[in-house]
Amino acid sequence: MQAWKEYQEKHKDRFLSELLELLRIPSVSARSEHKDDMAKCAALVKQRLQEAGATTVEIYPTPGHPVVYGEKIIDPAKPTVLVYGHYDVQPADPLELWHSGPFEPVIKDGKIFARGACDDKGQFYMHVKAFETMTATGSQPVNIKFLIEGEEEIGSRNLEDFLASHKDLLKADVVLISDTSMLSLDTPSIDVGVRGLTYIEVEVTGPNRDLHSGVYGGAVANPITILAQLIASMHDQNNHITIPGFYDDVLEVPAEERAALAKAPFDEEEYKKDLGVKALWGEKGFTSNERTGIRPTLEVNGIWGGYTGEGAKTVLPSKAFAKISCRLVPNQKSEVITELVLNHLKKIAPAYIEVKATPHHGGNPYLTPVDSKEYKAAEKAIEATFGKTPIPVRGGGSIPITALFESILDCKTVFLGFGLDSDNLHSPNEKFDLANYYKGIETIPYFHKFYGE
Amino acid sequence: MQAWKEYQEKHKDRFLSELLELLRIPSVSARSEHKDDMAKCAALVKQRLQEAGATTVEIYPTPGHPVVYGEKIIDPAKPTVLVYGHYDVQPADPLELWHSGPFEPVIKDGKIFARGACDDKGQFYMHVKAFETMTATGSQPVNIKFLIEGEEEIGSRNLEDFLASHKDLLKADVVLISDTSMLSLDTPSIDVGVRGLTYIEVEVTGPNRDLHSGVYGGAVANPITILAQLIASMHDQNNHITIPGFYDDVLEVPAEERAALAKAPFDEEEYKKDLGVKALWGEKGFTSNERTGIRPTLEVNGIWGGYTGEGAKTVLPSKAFAKISCRLVPNQKSEVITELVLNHLKKIAPAYIEVKATPHHGGNPYLTPVDSKEYKAAEKAIEATFGKTPIPVRGGGSIPITALFESILDCKTVFLGFGLDSDNLHSPNEKFDLANYYKGIETIPYFHKFYGE
Repeated sequence: MQAWKEYQEKHKDRFLSELLELLRIPSVSARSEHKDDMAKCAALVKQRLQEAGATTVEIYPTPGHPVVYGEKIIDPAKPTVLVYGHYDVQPADPLELWHSGPFEPVIKDGKIFARGACDDKGQFYMHVKAFETMTATGSQPVNIKFLIEGEEEIGSRNLEDFLASHKDLLKADVVLISDTSMLSLDTPSIDVGVRGLTYIEVEVTGPNRDLHSGVYGGAVANPITILAQLIASMHDQNNHITIPGFYDDVLEVPAEERAALAKAPFDEEEYKKDLGVKALWGEKGFTSNERTGIRPTLEVNGIWGGYTGEGAKTVLPSKAFAKISCRLVPNQKSEVITELVLNHLKKIAPAYIEVKATPHHGGNPYLTPVDSKEYKAAEKAIEATFGKTPIPVRGGGSIPITALFESILDCKTVFLGFGLDSDNLHSPNEKFDLANYYKGIETIPYFHKFYGE
Repeated sequence: MQAWKEYQEKHKDRFLSELLELLRIPSVSARSEHKDDMAKCAALVKQRLQEAGATTVEIYPTPGHPVVYGEKIIDPAKPTVLVYGHYDVQPADPLELWHSGPFEPVIKDGKIFARGACDDKGQFYMHVKAFETMTATGSQPVNIKFLIEGEEEIGSRNLEDFLASHKDLLKADVVLISDTSMLSLDTPSIDVGVRGLTYIEVEVTGPNRDLHSGVYGGAVANPITILAQLIASMHDQNNHITIPGFYDDVLEVPAEERAALAKAPFDEEEYKKDLGVKALWGEKGFTSNERTGIRPTLEVNGIWGGYTGEGAKTVLPSKAFAKISCRLVPNQKSEVITELVLNHLKKIAPAYIEVKATPHHGGNPYLTPVDSKEYKAAEKAIEATFGKTPIPVRGGGSIPITALFESILDCKTVFLGFGLDSDNLHSPNEKFDLANYYKGIETIPYFHKFYGE
C-alpha cells in the first residue's frame, strides 16, 4: 500500500522520538520502588493509543500494575485482532556492564540501546505506529484491540483474573504478539512455539546462625556446599535433567520436523564467537537449535549465600539461596513440573539441612499450527515486505499468557517478532535495530490486511 | 596475689567502660570506608597502653592499617613476653540478624554484645588491664611487650614485613595470645593447636554477557551450574576432600592422643540443639571434635552469581563467584594447599567455561608442645584462678601469624583464650561473657608470674 509507505516515511522521526520517550521511563515491574514509574508509563501508553486513533482507551487498575486497553472497532461483522504487548521491563542490573544508562536511550550504529528497546516497548510500539498508519490513511482492514500489560516480566500475575473478568471486552478472533525474534532481516522467520516456564526459589538452611568456619567447619553441614550438591545432582553427565518424571510429557518431535527445523541457518563458530565461549554445552543427542527449541531445560538464574563482599570472611553461613527455572516444551504443564521440582528438592535434601522451595510464576508452552489462518496471514505479510517466505522456528523463550488466551478467551496466538537473538534481552546493553523497528511498522498493517481477507 | 585482686575489684567498672568505648569504633579492616576508624582505634589503643603503664608506645604505619606497639622493660635480664592481639574486627553483615547495633555494645544477661567483643578487642584488652594491674601494684614479674595489629581479619598482610624489619624491637622469649576459646569456665582448657588456612576466590565465566535463559538456556553452559558442579565434586560421599594430594602431609594423630582429646566433654544433642540442626555432617571415621580439631576442611564461605534481587529474572549469567577456604592441620603447608586447590580447579574446569582462581591470605597450622615452659606457665595460671587443671584441646580456627613468630622471631606461642565457642565470632550477635572477661584479667598476671619463675 503506497499510502502506508508514504505516511510512515513522513513520520519516521516522530515514530522514533516517541519510542525514546517511552524508554526513558524506568518501568521495572519487579521493583516496588518503580511503582510510580509504572503508572507514568501506563499513562503515556494510553495517551499514545488515543493519539494513534483508538476510540476507547482505558487504564484498568489491578492488584499489581495497571493494564492499558484500547480499541477501534470499524465493523462488528469484521474479524477482530487483539494486539498484546507489555510496557514493563526487566531490572537493569548489573548496571556497571551497561555502556550507557539503561533508561537514557542512545542510538549507535543504527541501534537503539536501552532497557526495553526490544523487550517489549520497541516491539509493542511498532503496533501503535502501524495502527496510526492505518487510521490516519483511512485503511484499517479489521477491528483492532490493544491489551498492553505491566506485569509480563513478573509472570503476568494479575492477567488471568483480568482476562476472566473482561471476556466480552477482549473478545477477538486472534491474538497478535510481537515479543519474539526473527533469525535476521535477510532470513525472516516466525516463531511457532514458545517454551513454558517453571520458576522456583530455593532456600537451604543449615545452622540457625552464621558460624565461624574455623570453629565449626568440618563438623556442621555448610548450606552453600549442600545447595551446590543439590544443583549439581540435577543434571547427569549427558546433561539430561535427573528429576524423575521430568521428561514424561515431552512431545517427541518427529524426524521430519527436526529436519525442517534444521534448515534454519546456524553457524556454530559464529555463535560461539558471539558468546565468547570455547565450547557449547547441552543435552546429548540434540543440536543447539533443538536444545533451545524443542527440549526442556533447567537453569540456575541466581545464587547467593555467605560473604560476598570485598576481601575474605571465614564464615560458615546459616543459609544459601538459588533461583531456578525450567523452560518447558509441549506437552509439559508448568504446574506439574513445578510440583515435580519442589518435591524432588525436598526428597533429596539431606537430614542436616532444611530445604524450603517456593514457586514464582510459571506458564505453559504454546504452539501455533503452521496451517492456521493466522500463521498464513503472518507469512504473507512478511512475504509482502521482505520478499521472502519466513522460516517457521521454535523459540526458546516463554510467553506464558498465550496459554491463558487460549483457555480463557478461546483465542489462538500468532507471533510476529522483529527482534534478534543478539538483542541482549534481560541483559546489559539491550538494543533494537532501527531497521527492524521500521520494518515491523511496515509489515504489521499487512498482517491485518491479509487476516481480514 | 591479694593486691591484684583488690586493684581489679576496685577498677572493675572502668575496665568494662573502657572496653565498651573500644567496641564503639567500627574498626572493620576489610572495608576501605573504615580506614579512618582504624586509625582512631589504633590511637585509642596507644593511649590506653600508655595509661596502663607502658613506657614506650608507638603507632607504626604499614602499607595497610597501623600496628600499635608498647612495652615496659623492668629488667633486661628477665624473660620477655610478647603479647599479641588485634584491634580490627570482621565485617558485621548480615546486619539484619543483629539484635542490637554491632558497634553499639549492650550488656544483656551478663554478656557484652558487639562486633569484636570477644574477637579480639575483649580478649586483647584483658591483657592491657592485667598489665595495668601489675604496674599499678608494682608487681610486674617479667618484661612485657605488646603488638596489637589491625589486619588480622584480612590475613595480617603486612605483619611479616613488620616482624622482619623490627626483630630487635620485638625480641621476646614467648608470644602470648588470647584469641581462642576455652570449653567453659567450669571446664577450663588451653588450645594447643590452631589450624592453618588457605583462602581463594573463584570466578567462573561462561558467555561474555548475561543472556536470556529462554533464548540461550540449554545450549550454553550456565556458570552457576558449572560452579555448583565444581564445588560438589570436591567432597566425596564420605565427605572426604577429593583434591588429589590434599591429605598427603596430614599428620595422623596417634590413637592415644585421639583418646586424650576425646576426654573433652562433648554433648552431641546439646551441640545440635544449640545450632538448630537435625543431624551433624562431616568426614566419615572421625568424631565432631576431631573434624574441627585434627582434620583439614574445605568450606565455601560465600557464593554469588546471576540475579539475586526481589522477584524473578530469567537470566543465564555471564559469571558466578565463590569464596572457598580450607582449614589445615600439621604438617600441611598453606602455600602447598593453595597451589593444589588452584591447579585442581583449573584442571577440572570443563572447556565451555573459564575458571580464574586467586588466593587471598593464608597461614600454616601450629602446635604448642604440652611439655613446654610456656604451656606449663599457662596451665599453672589457670590452676591458680580456676582451681582446676585445664584440658589441652585442638582449636578449629586459624591464627596464621603463630607460624611467622616462630620463623621470623624464633619464638614459640602459647594460647590463653577466654572466649567460648558460642561467642558468635564472625557472626551476628557476637558476645563475650563478663565473667570470662574478668576471669581473663585475673588469670593473665599469674601467667607472667609463673613464666618468670
